[in-house]
Amino acid sequence: MKAVVLLSGGVDSTTCLAVAIKRYSADQVMALTVYYGQKHAKEIEAARKIAAFYKVRHVEQALSSAFAFSDSSLLASSEKSVPHASYAEQLVGQGGEGTVETYVPFRNGLFLAYAAAVAGSIGAETILYGAHADDAAGSAYPDCTPAFFEAMCTAVYEGSGHACTLEAPFLRKTKADVVAAGLDLSAPYRLTWSCYEGREKPCGRCGTCIDRAKAFAANGISDPAMEG
Amino acid sequence: MKAVVLLSGGVDSTTCLAVAIKRYSADQVMALTVYYGQKHAKEIEAARKIAAFYKVRHVEQALSSAFAFSDSSLLASSEKSVPHASYAEQLVGQGGEGTVETYVPFRNGLFLAYAAAVAGSIGAETILYGAHADDAAGSAYPDCTPAFFEAMCTAVYEGSGHACTLEAPFLRKTKADVVAAGLDLSAPYRLTWSCYEGREKPCGRCGTCIDRAKAFAANGISDPAMEG
Repeated sequence: MKAVVLLSGGVDSTTCLAVAIKRYSADQVMALTVYYGQKHAKEIEAARKIAAFYKVRHVEQALSSAFAFSDSSLLASSEKSVPHASYAEQLVGQGGEGTVETYVPFRNGLFLAYAAAVAGSIGAETILYGAHADDAAGSAYPDCTPAFFEAMCTAVYEGSGHACTLEAPFLRKTKADVVAAGLDLSAPYRLTWSCYEGREKPCGRCGTCIDRAKAFAANGISDPAMEG
Repeated sequence: MKAVVLLSGGVDSTTCLAVAIKRYSADQVMALTVYYGQKHAKEIEAARKIAAFYKVRHVEQALSSAFAFSDSSLLASSEKSVPHASYAEQLVGQGGEGTVETYVPFRNGLFLAYAAAVAGSIGAETILYGAHADDAAGSAYPDCTPAFFEAMCTAVYEGSGHACTLEAPFLRKTKADVVAAGLDLSAPYRLTWSCYEGREKPCGRCGTCIDRAKAFAANGISDPAMEG
């Protein structure tokens, strides 16, 4: 195995998997999907379909116990509902500071560390991760910022004895750039799922639905997952 | 809750818990113990006794799936036996380079990230971790080096939105210094367990038994856990 790709089942991680598949053969790539107690566990079904599409080994792991004490509205255990507003609008309501209600404490740090443990165990040389510049959204998601990610890169490189690197090919790109790259690689976006609510159809109103629609619109197409 | 302490049940983490208890009241401290598939699961029983001694909340978590693909000799799933030699002696056999057989890929990174997720969920402001200078032992355990730890500190601070810090009070001290500090705080060393083999009595010959005996000897006493 050469690469581990963190695959949530959304647009960004699917694009990362497309990047890995362009670079390595499918039998050298492992997709890793984490269940962390999210309301939208439907994205895990999407991840399965995407991994099957690319014929890569797919490992699913539950890490929801880490967030047993969290009241993030993204978690199924929370009674709070997911806000119907963009991340920027949510921050306006709190003076432009702090995290948003859907922030899950250090979630991405845990995912990356877990991926590094798996990568070290199977001898993979790289971990691909779909963070991009729009994800951080100011202080909304601190575990999506370049400052966080670059520290994790160093931690993984040093902690693995220089055997493994962490890559976020879109770290300084927008989500529209991610979609542009994925369209170029024929990423199977019709199979993806992003909506935080996890109902039958995407709500079209939560932060991630709004971001996603904008990214496809910027590329001159409508969201393939909203069709059919 | 103010602090999360990673408690393995050994000398270093028990000393960290003693430091936390000196600083906070017991009801402000959570001890977190991880089962990762180690041969010496006996240290978990030790952790329970130590947490009970200090009357702190104790959370146990299994993360062994992360290492399902690893052949580290520290894991119960490995058929390799734990080497009977100090870390330095083991490295001599491999030209002074690489990790030792008992290295578990990115184990400490995963533990710290998990602790950060829990700390963020319960609103703890700090995570205490028992790494010290002898742990790194050259390249033996890359996830014990200051370069690794300092990167994780930055990752936790940034990824938590500056809400949580990571502390390793003994990062640049020797294990003998750790024991000196713990003796000063009356840490219950008789309850601790370190031996990698997990039999009824410590073997006295594995890397961690050797290090531990030296650290107590340097303080002019015999290992309290070897008595009785």
